Amino acid sequence: MRMAELAARSGVPVATIKYYRREGLLPAGRQTAPNQAEYDEGHLARLHLIRVLREVADVPVAAIGAVVAAIEDPDRTTHEVVGAAHRALDRDSTPVDPQDRSVADEVVARAGWEVSDTAPARDGLARALTALDELGMAPDADALERYVKAAELVARGEVEATVGGAEGASRDALVARVVAGTVLYEQVLATLRRLAQEHHSARRGS
Amino acid sequence: MRMAELAARSGVPVATIKYYRREGLLPAGRQTAPNQAEYDEGHLARLHLIRVLREVADVPVAAIGAVVAAIEDPDRTTHEVVGAAHRALDRDSTPVDPQDRSVADEVVARAGWEVSDTAPARDGLARALTALDELGMAPDADALERYVKAAELVARGEVEATVGGAEGASRDALVARVVAGTVLYEQVLATLRRLAQEHHSARRGS
Repeated sequence: MRMAELAARSGVPVATIKYYRREGLLPAGRQTAPNQAEYDEGHLARLHLIRVLREVADVPVAAIGAVVAAIEDPDRTTHEVVGAAHRALDRDSTPVDPQDRSVADEVVARAGWEVSDTAPARDGLARALTALDELGMAPDADALERYVKAAELVARGEVEATVGGAEGASRDALVARVVAGTVLYEQVLATLRRLAQEHHSARRGS
Repeated sequence: MRMAELAARSGVPVATIKYYRREGLLPAGRQTAPNQAEYDEGHLARLHLIRVLREVADVPVAAIGAVVAAIEDPDRTTHEVVGAAHRALDRDSTPVDPQDRSVADEVVARAGWEVSDTAPARDGLARALTALDELGMAPDADALERYVKAAELVARGEVEATVGGAEGASRDALVARVVAGTVLYEQVLATLRRLAQEHHSARRGS
């Protein structure tokens, strides 16, 4: 398809597509004449991915390059590509104290999860637990177990649905599903939790 | 205590305390001399609450007024005060289509939760479900049930720990606990979910 059709089908304006080209986020089209190029479904899938990263996950254009590089590197496994996408979603780079990190690492070990040492969620968990501790609100072992159980309950199904549902799809399509799923189901879980809290708080009658 | 001690004990600079006074977020001290006022534990608790709202929950000063007004209104029940705090945390005011809202409302009804019609989490849930639907990733009934169950699993214990743990505390102290708990335990749950996802994704060996 030509540039105009690519813009129409992707919903991304021509000027923006050209900008993504210059930033190296979108591969060149196939040159068919000095001033003409053909684009294909791969370009469409890439633009869909970029939209999901920008609009759903609020990832800045500058951080999308790392995701695209992982997708285009044939030496990276799908699992590694998903890891690169997760890193793009987590932009809190506040350093974490090793002592705080070890508390979080212990939670992960006790849950029996095998997770890379550099997973950004390890730091995120450490930050949240440290802040709770400073407020005198650190969870006891039972409470932590409930969070681990709740996370386990939703995550297994999510991986099946996301990766399983994208069997045979391109890496771009898979990563778009993973990113949208991570962000939007986080919102589903967070809002349901608040609704359940309100229900139980009202029942307490306070 | 005098202003200097209030600043030292709260960790909030004198200039900031005076700014909160002007904004009506902090009640006046007890005048003891033309240029001198005494502050008490209530002022300290209020400053702690404001810090939690600002630093943990990232609530702008302009939105804190509504929380303080609810706390100071003796006609509001504790449950209503907590609701005001939750509304301050949810600042997404994108309008929600009634059709989308009814899908979210049905989820809440099926969960058996009694929740106010105006709870902002109803709109938040509707927004997330709509976005998932537009991406062809809407959850089926089984998946939704898992999220409801996970939310239920953590929320009941949270209400007990937060409200129960603040028995006899001032409203300021209670709201500070609720706000910190809502934001920080949301982070705990979200990061644990990502860690569990990575574990299951790696085990799939993809």
